[in-house]
Parts: sequence; C-alpha cells; structure tokens
Amino acid sequence: MEALFTVNNLWILVATCLVFIMHLGFATLEAGFVQRKNVVNILFKNSMIISIGLLTYYFIGYNLMYPGDDYAGGVIGAFGVMDWAAGVTPDYAAAAEAGDTYTGYSDFIFQAMFAATCATIVSGAVAERIKLVPFLIFATLFVALSYPITGMWQWGGGWLASLQTPFYDFAGSTLVHAAGGFAALAAIILLGSRRGKYRSDGTVTAIPGHSMPLAAIGVFLLWFGWFGFNGGSVLSADPNGVSLVFVTTSLAAAAGGVAAFFMGYVLFKSYDLSMVLNGILGGLVGITAGADLMSGGEAIVIGLIAGTIIPLSIVFFDKTLRLDDPVGATSVHGVCGIWGTLAVGLFGASAGFDQFITQLIGTLAVGAFSFASSFMIFSGLKAVMGIRVDEEEEIRGLDVGEHDMHAYSLTKEDGVFQLTSE
Amino acid sequence: MEALFTVNNLWILVATCLVFIMHLGFATLEAGFVQRKNVVNILFKNSMIISIGLLTYYFIGYNLMYPGDDYAGGVIGAFGVMDWAAGVTPDYAAAAEAGDTYTGYSDFIFQAMFAATCATIVSGAVAERIKLVPFLIFATLFVALSYPITGMWQWGGGWLASLQTPFYDFAGSTLVHAAGGFAALAAIILLGSRRGKYRSDGTVTAIPGHSMPLAAIGVFLLWFGWFGFNGGSVLSADPNGVSLVFVTTSLAAAAGGVAAFFMGYVLFKSYDLSMVLNGILGGLVGITAGADLMSGGEAIVIGLIAGTIIPLSIVFFDKTLRLDDPVGATSVHGVCGIWGTLAVGLFGASAGFDQFITQLIGTLAVGAFSFASSFMIFSGLKAVMGIRVDEEEEIRGLDVGEHDMHAYSLTKEDGVFQLTSE
Amino acid sequence: MEALFTVNNLWILVATCLVFIMHLGFATLEAGFVQRKNVVNILFKNSMIISIGLLTYYFIGYNLMYPGDDYAGGVIGAFGVMDWAAGVTPDYAAAAEAGDTYTGYSDFIFQAMFAATCATIVSGAVAERIKLVPFLIFATLFVALSYPITGMWQWGGGWLASLQTPFYDFAGSTLVHAAGGFAALAAIILLGSRRGKYRSDGTVTAIPGHSMPLAAIGVFLLWFGWFGFNGGSVLSADPNGVSLVFVTTSLAAAAGGVAAFFMGYVLFKSYDLSMVLNGILGGLVGITAGADLMSGGEAIVIGLIAGTIIPLSIVFFDKTLRLDDPVGATSVHGVCGIWGTLAVGLFGASAGFDQFITQLIGTLAVGAFSFASSFMIFSGLKAVMGIRVDEEEEIRGLDVGEHDMHAYSLTKEDGVFQLTSE
Repeated sequence: MEALFTVNNLWILVATCLVFIMHLGFATLEAGFVQRKNVVNILFKNSMIISIGLLTYYFIGYNLMYPGDDYAGGVIGAFGVMDWAAGVTPDYAAAAEAGDTYTGYSDFIFQAMFAATCATIVSGAVAERIKLVPFLIFATLFVALSYPITGMWQWGGGWLASLQTPFYDFAGSTLVHAAGGFAALAAIILLGSRRGKYRSDGTVTAIPGHSMPLAAIGVFLLWFGWFGFNGGSVLSADPNGVSLVFVTTSLAAAAGGVAAFFMGYVLFKSYDLSMVLNGILGGLVGITAGADLMSGGEAIVIGLIAGTIIPLSIVFFDKTLRLDDPVGATSVHGVCGIWGTLAVGLFGASAGFDQFITQLIGTLAVGAFSFASSFMIFSGLKAVMGIRVDEEEEIRGLDVGEHDMHAYSLTKEDGVFQLTSE
Repeated sequence: MEALFTVNNLWILVATCLVFIMHLGFATLEAGFVQRKNVVNILFKNSMIISIGLLTYYFIGYNLMYPGDDYAGGVIGAFGVMDWAAGVTPDYAAAAEAGDTYTGYSDFIFQAMFAATCATIVSGAVAERIKLVPFLIFATLFVALSYPITGMWQWGGGWLASLQTPFYDFAGSTLVHAAGGFAALAAIILLGSRRGKYRSDGTVTAIPGHSMPLAAIGVFLLWFGWFGFNGGSVLSADPNGVSLVFVTTSLAAAAGGVAAFFMGYVLFKSYDLSMVLNGILGGLVGITAGADLMSGGEAIVIGLIAGTIIPLSIVFFDKTLRLDDPVGATSVHGVCGIWGTLAVGLFGASAGFDQFITQLIGTLAVGAFSFASSFMIFSGLKAVMGIRVDEEEEIRGLDVGEHDMHAYSLTKEDGVFQLTSE
Repeated sequence: MEALFTVNNLWILVATCLVFIMHLGFATLEAGFVQRKNVVNILFKNSMIISIGLLTYYFIGYNLMYPGDDYAGGVIGAFGVMDWAAGVTPDYAAAAEAGDTYTGYSDFIFQAMFAATCATIVSGAVAERIKLVPFLIFATLFVALSYPITGMWQWGGGWLASLQTPFYDFAGSTLVHAAGGFAALAAIILLGSRRGKYRSDGTVTAIPGHSMPLAAIGVFLLWFGWFGFNGGSVLSADPNGVSLVFVTTSLAAAAGGVAAFFMGYVLFKSYDLSMVLNGILGGLVGITAGADLMSGGEAIVIGLIAGTIIPLSIVFFDKTLRLDDPVGATSVHGVCGIWGTLAVGLFGASAGFDQFITQLIGTLAVGAFSFASSFMIFSGLKAVMGIRVDEEEEIRGLDVGEHDMHAYSLTKEDGVFQLTSE
C-alpha cells in the first residue's frame, strides 16, 4: 500500500511539472502571435504571472478554493495561508487504505500550477496595448480571488457540485478555460482595439504575429503539458483512468487540428497555420471537461466540432463584433470551454438532458462571475491609473515604452543587417 | 501487485509524453535547417502529421500493426478500428500476476506516438519544394498502411520475429528510423533537388538553414524524448531494464556528438554545429536497436561509429549521389538506422554471425518495402496532381505560396529594420 | 516491496530527464543573452559540454565522486571507469528492504547529468571572446576532475560530510552552482572583458543579448528541470519528501522573480526582464541547498533575498569590479549559491550557529578549490595556446571565426530583407 500511495503521489508531481511547462507554452504562443515590438512585454507578463500566481495561491487562493467539508454547497471558501503542517501525510499505507492518493503538499502545488493559467489566458487577449502595472494588479486580484471563488463552486465542493444533477467539469473546460476566456472578453471590451485594427470605413486590418516558430513551439508545449493537466486531474495514477484520458485528450487535439485545417481552407482558401494551431488548442480545451467520460469516437467528434468552431469564432469576434483579441483567447478558451462543458451533456457516460442543463447553468454562472469580476477590476484600475498605454507608446511598442529594451538586438557589427533606425 | 501494475503503466504514459515532444523536436530541427521562406510550411506539415498520425492509428494502424496471436509469423495484420472496450484492464493485480504491465489504452497511445515519426522523417528530406496536399496524402497513406505493415513483421509477431534466429530491433532503428529514411530516399529521388542546389558545372551550393537555435532546440528535445522512445520500449518500469537503457542511450548520443565533432573537423576544417547535432542524432538512432543489450563501452563504440558515419554519409549523398536532403534525414535515420540494426549482430548480448545475417535481412526487407511503398505513393501522386511546387513558388517560398503568410513579420514600425522589399 | 523499489527508481529516471533538459535551458538562456554573431558558438559549446560531461563521468568522474565507504572523510576519491556489472540490482524486494531506492545505472546517469552543469555555468560567463578548443579542454578537465573532487567532499562522504557539525547541501547550491560560479569568476578574470565593454573614461557599455525569447525559454526550462534537480535529490519518490521539495522550490523561484522585479525597478526605473529572469534563477539556486528543510514561508524569504541580491550583485560585478559576465553567471550561481548554502544555517530545520559556521567553511572551501583549479587550468591553456580570440574575430563574431557559419541565414530571395553586407 505504501508503494501504491507513492506511485499515485508521484504522478501528481510529474503532472505538476507538465502543467508548469504550459506556462512556457503560453509565453511562447503569445510572444509568437504579437508584433516584434511587444515581445519583451509578453514575456515579462508571463514570467510575473506564474510567480504571482504561486505566491497568492499559497497566501490565500488554496484555502479559498479548497476550504474543506464545512463549506459544502457554499459560494465562498475560507481565507488564510496554506496550512504547512497539514502538507505531510504521516502514514502512507494508512492513507492509501483510506483512499488517499497524494500528500497535502502535492495537492497544493498541482492546484497552484493551474491557478495562474487563467491570468495567462487574459494576458494574450490584452496584448500590445495594456499597461504593465495595472495588468499585474489585475492578475494578482483575479488569481487570488476570482479564480478560487468560482473554482470552489465545483472542485471545492460548493454549490455547483451540490446541485441535484451535479455539475461536471473534469479538468476545467469551464473552471479554468472559460473563466479565463470570459475575463479576457471583459478586458478587451474595456480596453478597446489596437490602433489601426478597425478602420472607420469598416475594413479590418490583419496584424500578423512576429514569429510562427514561437507560436508553434507554444502549441506543442501546451499539448505536452495537457497530458499533466488532464491526466493529473484523475488525481491518482489509476491505470485505466489516466491512460483513457491520455487517449481522449490526444484524439481530440488531433481532430481539432484536422477540422481547423479544413474549415480554415473553406474560409480563407489557404492553409492557415494559425488556425491549425488554434484548432489543436480548441480540441484540447473542448475535451477537458469530459476527458474521463468519452470513448475514442466521442473524443474525435468533440475535437472535430471544436476545430470547426475555432475559425468561425475567431472571424466572428474579429469581423462581426470587432473585438480585438490578438491570440484568439476568447475563442480558444472561452467558446471552446463552453463547448467542452456542454459536450458532457451530449456525449459520453454522463450524457442526458438534466446534465446538459446543469452544464449550461455551470458554465454561464462561472463565465458571468469571471466576466463581472474582471470587468470590475479593470474598471477600477481604468478610473484610478488608466489601463491603456498612450498612442506614442503603442506605436513605438511596449518593449521600449515599458521595459526600455528590444526583444531582438541587431547591430551592424553582426554582419548581416544594416541598422536603419534607432 | 496493484502498485506494480500502476507504476509500470505510469512509465509507459510518461514515456508517451516524452515521445510526443519528439514531434516538437522534429518540427524545430527541420524548421531551423530550412530557409526562412519555408518555415511556416514545415511547421504546418509537422502539426498535421502528428494529428493525422494519431487519427489513422486509431482507425486502422493499431490493428494492422498489433493484430494478435492469430497472425503470428504473417506479413500483414488485421483491419479495423481500435477496440475501445479492450483498452480497460479489469483487475490490476491479476494482470500484474500474469505479467502484464500496462492497459490497452496505454499500449495504443504509446505506439500511436511512434507511428507518426516515420512521416516526420520524410518531411525534412522533402522540404522546400514539395506541394503541401500531396505530402499530406502521402503521410496519411504511409502512416496508415506502410509503417504498420513493416512494424507488424517484428513487433506484431510477424515473419521477422519468427525467423529461426529472430530479428532484433529493440526500439526501432529499423522499424521506425530506417523505414522513414528509406521512404525519404524514394521521395527525394522522385522529387529532385532544390533549384540552384546542383549546378550543371558540377558545383554544389550549400543552402544554409535559417536558424541554428531552432535546430539545436530540436536536437536537445529529440534527445530528451528519446529517453521515452527507448526507455518506454522496455514496456515496463523494470528498474534494471529502464536504467540500463537510459545509460546506453545517453552514452551513445554523447559519443555520436564527439565523433562528429572530430570527423566534421577532418572533412571541413571547421567546427560544424550541424554535424555535431546530426552526430548526436546518429548516435541515438544507432543505439536504438540494441539499447537494452549493450554495455557502456559498447554503447560508446556504437555512438562513435554512428557519429563518424554522419559527416561521411551526408557528404556522400550530397556531393557524390547529388541527392538533395536539406536536413540529412537519409543519413541520420536511414544510414544510422541500418548501422544500429547491424550493430546488434556485432556487439552486446546477441552478437553473432547468425544474428548479423538476420539483422541484415530485416533491415533490408523493411527498407526495401518502405522505399517501394513510398516510391509508389509519390509516383501515383506525381501522375495525378504533381508533387512539386512550380519554379516561381519555390523561389518565393512555400510560406507565401501555400500558406499566404511569413514565418516572421517585421514592419518599419517595429523600429529596428527598414523593409526593403514587399 | 518490488513495486516500491520500482517507483523510487522510476522517479530518479524521470528526474534524470528533467535535469537533462536543463542543458537545453542553459543553451537557450546563454544563446539569448549573447550577441547574434556568437550564437552558434554558444550552441556548439553547450552541445559538446553535455557530450563530454557524460563520457568523462563514465570514464573517471563517477568513481572519483562516489568512491564508497573506504574513502569516508577523505579529500579525493578513486580513479577508474564505472563498474558496469555493479549497475544491476539483483533482487528488487531485498534492495527495498535494505533501504535502497534505485539501481547503480540510475545512480550513474542521474549524477552524470549534474556533472556537466558546472562547465555550462562557465560557458555563459566566458561567452563572446573565448577560443573554442581551450574552452573544451577546460570543460573536460573541470568536469572530469575538479567537480568530482569537490563533490566527493560532501556527497561522496568526504571531509565536509564528516565534520562534527556536518556540512549540508541538499542538491548543490555549493557543490554545483557555487562551484561553477567560482570557476566562472577565475575564467573571466583571466580572460578580460569584451572589447568596448569598459571604456577608459570609466563608462560601461551595455551589450544587450540578441533574443529575449530564447532567454525566457531558457529560464522556464531551467525551472522545469529544477523539479528533477531538487526533487530527484531526495533520492527516492518518498511522497512527503519530494512534494515538499516541489513546493519550496517553486515558492523560492516565484519569490526570486517578484523581488528582482521590485529591486530592478528601484535600480533602473524600468521593468527589466533580464533581472526578473535572473531573479527566478537566483531563487532556484538559493533554495537548492535546503529545499528539504524549509517551510513555505522560509522558502519565500530565501527566494526574496536571492531575488534582491541578483540586481545588486550584477551591478556590483559589472560597474564596480568591472568584471564582464554576459549572462550574470557569477551572480546567479556564485553569489546566490553562497547565499543558499548559508541560508541553511539561518532558516529551517538545521538552523543554528554551528551549522552556519560549517556552511561558511564548506562553501568557501569548495569555492576556493573550484576557483583555483579553474584558474590553473585556464592559466596553463593561456600559456600554451592562448584562450582569447583575436580582435578581428571578436568584432566579426565567433560564429564566422570558429564555425564558418551564421546562426541565422537570410538572403534576398527570402523576400523580406535586403542583404546589405557580406
């Protein structure tokens, strides 16, 4: 039994490493999709978000999200620093007999790695025009308060988990991805679009990302990390459970990529790499709510639909709503997060009308709360200190404006380019 | 026993993650070794290959490669979708008693990650001049049919595994790497060289890759993933088995790098990074067939020979045969794949004349089949739709021609460069 | 018990993979922080260092560092090739009963991955001006002899481990990081600064790195790998032990980043990405000596102090001492290595005056030996063959000078840039 506890705990820790590397995935994906002049800013934000996320989760988030049985059915958890002494498991064999599969420390660090992802999702959507300091204040408040509150509703045993037909969100299509996506939506509404993006004559300017290799590295790392994100959410190394999740996660990602390939061609008459990359991510987000409930065929269908949604949703937000989201975060995480949550009511072991309704309630409730909290925080920051860089800084780039450096330095001595400005 | 089954299964899943990340390694390696104007195309192909590979392996490849005992000694497996219900292991303790070490789902996903690598190997060799759609059709057919058929000959219990002295290919020097290398050879023969590569006066133009950092990232990620590729091929977490494989794999890779350093200097009188990187890969491919049979010293010798072969083989293909392979895939995977397979007959626990002959038969049979199937598929595609982009597109680059985008976007506003064309 | 041995051993192997990928982290970090014209050179050095490190550790380092009980309390280990036959564990259950947790092969490969990191630390500090061949000779000698000798003093049961109050260095703040940092210090003193760095009028020129994305990728990969570096140093998969180390490591890294953010702003009045990245690394180096002894709060304090030290130390070396260290290795690994070692005497389960004195003795002894051995090796090389490239090569870049290639190739045909020189 000691060995069983050890192997279960080990998988949570390995999964922690994998979820951690998703932060590099987000950093490179977002860096690749922004212009060259705003790359340092993205890297800076993503380096700070993981740091802030871990610290706030230690000081407040963990207890707020997992307050224990006393808060069952509730809407808000407990305040307080993580209880360090409770991290230790005194007797592995006894713990395993009781059905426990990991130590308190493992629980904390695995969940802490999840917490910061919400803010990272927002980071991409508001890129290229948000001021650094207000964004970091938002990230701190959102990760410390908003994410743990909505997370507690389900994973902390709150009201969503206590409905007659309980809400189901295996690894966070709603609690992580839609939460981040809706927060991003609030942010881009308040922030406005990048200069020159939407012209008064109705035309929409495409602003291409500066490095497709960075974007592709990001997507592969995110897929890699998703094995820990979904696989670790089994909360043990149970062989059938984890291996099933690996298969459904992979098949949905693959189907998302293939569907986005075809849909991208239908819409744009070209083979659009951005769409395939976002299609893979859409498939991953889509399978996340029910990765443990689906068969291979169902995972493929969920992925195909997610991959079909992606180009349509990106065009809808960009051309119809004229909401400027440089990386497509609202579509990938928001729209596909909802899709994945609803899919639990349509496919797999929990499918059914009651489940579908619960899924709808849950995703809308979490989405609404995240949207509202993000809107309130950014509104307050806008009133107090402003959230948008000035016009000159936006044109020149945030790298020079906020960080006084370039992402890439080239000099004449490098022997390749002639420096023509600065 | 439940714990033992769980830890064995867990290692297969962790190894699956590691093999997955090899696809990012191939993507960045190949992207780094091609010209700037063809980078999106490479990333697109590699994103699609893993997606196509997983889906086709689910629908057809898995049963074709692992058809079960009824097909023992045969030459072709069974057709049909993966049997989802058989993925579950009902009783872990009983399974462990019976010697099983992983679930059916784990088996599928680990093997599925291997399947697409063959097509990825071809992707690099045909870079910078192949049309996208015929390549994707080739990848689909090759991964769905050719790779599982030759794979079944050995790993599925087919005729190579049933020879009097059975063929031995621990993790795929032949079944994966030489198979991919020979398919690549057929492809580049049919496709022809890049424009301007071989002049009529006999001179050979070097076409340098556009980013050595991307290439180096690729090789380190491939080495990282190889711990799963070879280590996972133990098919359990057996401590002696897996740790031995880690040591032999690492020592061979290191020796390959060192040998290519010296041989590169002998040939080119400079310290050639491409050669060291390919030497490391050559060492990895070389040890793959017998990673579980060798001592440390033998692993080093195998790696040294592989690393010595690499520069010689690359020059031979490029200068003597005038076959254009932008990333050296035929040398790394084809030639070193053969070398590693033969090495099993020369070094280690299975060395012997009979074994050497069997190894020769096996690697030639698989190589010939892969070459022939690749040749047939590409010939058919050439006749039906053409496989090569037109001259104008090749000059302008496939990124604009096939994908209507640049890998790197720079504008005057970025404040660093003046845009001088387009 | 067989399962327990298997899971313990598996964690050492997974940790080995994680430590391996730190070599890619160092490669990309250093490549990002140097100028475009010296990138191939950095990648070449880092590819060779891991290769040389593994081979020398097999042939000499392992026995020199872990000579067994006969050498208890000593100052130098045994010479000889790794004993291959001793890699095997004959009976897993019996081994587990005896308290063993991994095979001899696992021990070798995990420790071998550590060995080369010392030389990698030096590689960054001497970048952009050192000759390739003397550096590789230094790396070979330092990894084969100096690192294993000082490592043996503690981890091999030598004199530091036998003091009345034994020295404590959990995962190598001193034995790995300070050792590397002090070797780097000796090297940059002997080598001198890059041309144009320090002017005769007292001004100091900032020479920005060529790619912040590469630098950021490096730091995230190093953090990722540190889970194996520190977590694997538990030397088993013990749930409480490893999960505690994951938490302290992560919190210290996060605190290091946040402290460097503030201190960087105080010093430079801008949000300096290099400082945040180095602050994270400083936090990681700082927690390494006592990652298993600290509480969450203590880990955060250690990280905050490390992150505060980083900008101050970098400025002190650069402006006051006028010692040129392009990547800040002396501050990150040397200064924070000392800080982390001393912190074991100030915080956590072993805090106390006697422990503090021992920590001081240990870190100074190892630092002094590493400095002296590095100074001697480089002095010898300087006398025999010179260690610095000539002025023309330094201006033109080592990529062309040593390797006859560019890190990035661009041609007019790429359709983006006009080539203006070469």
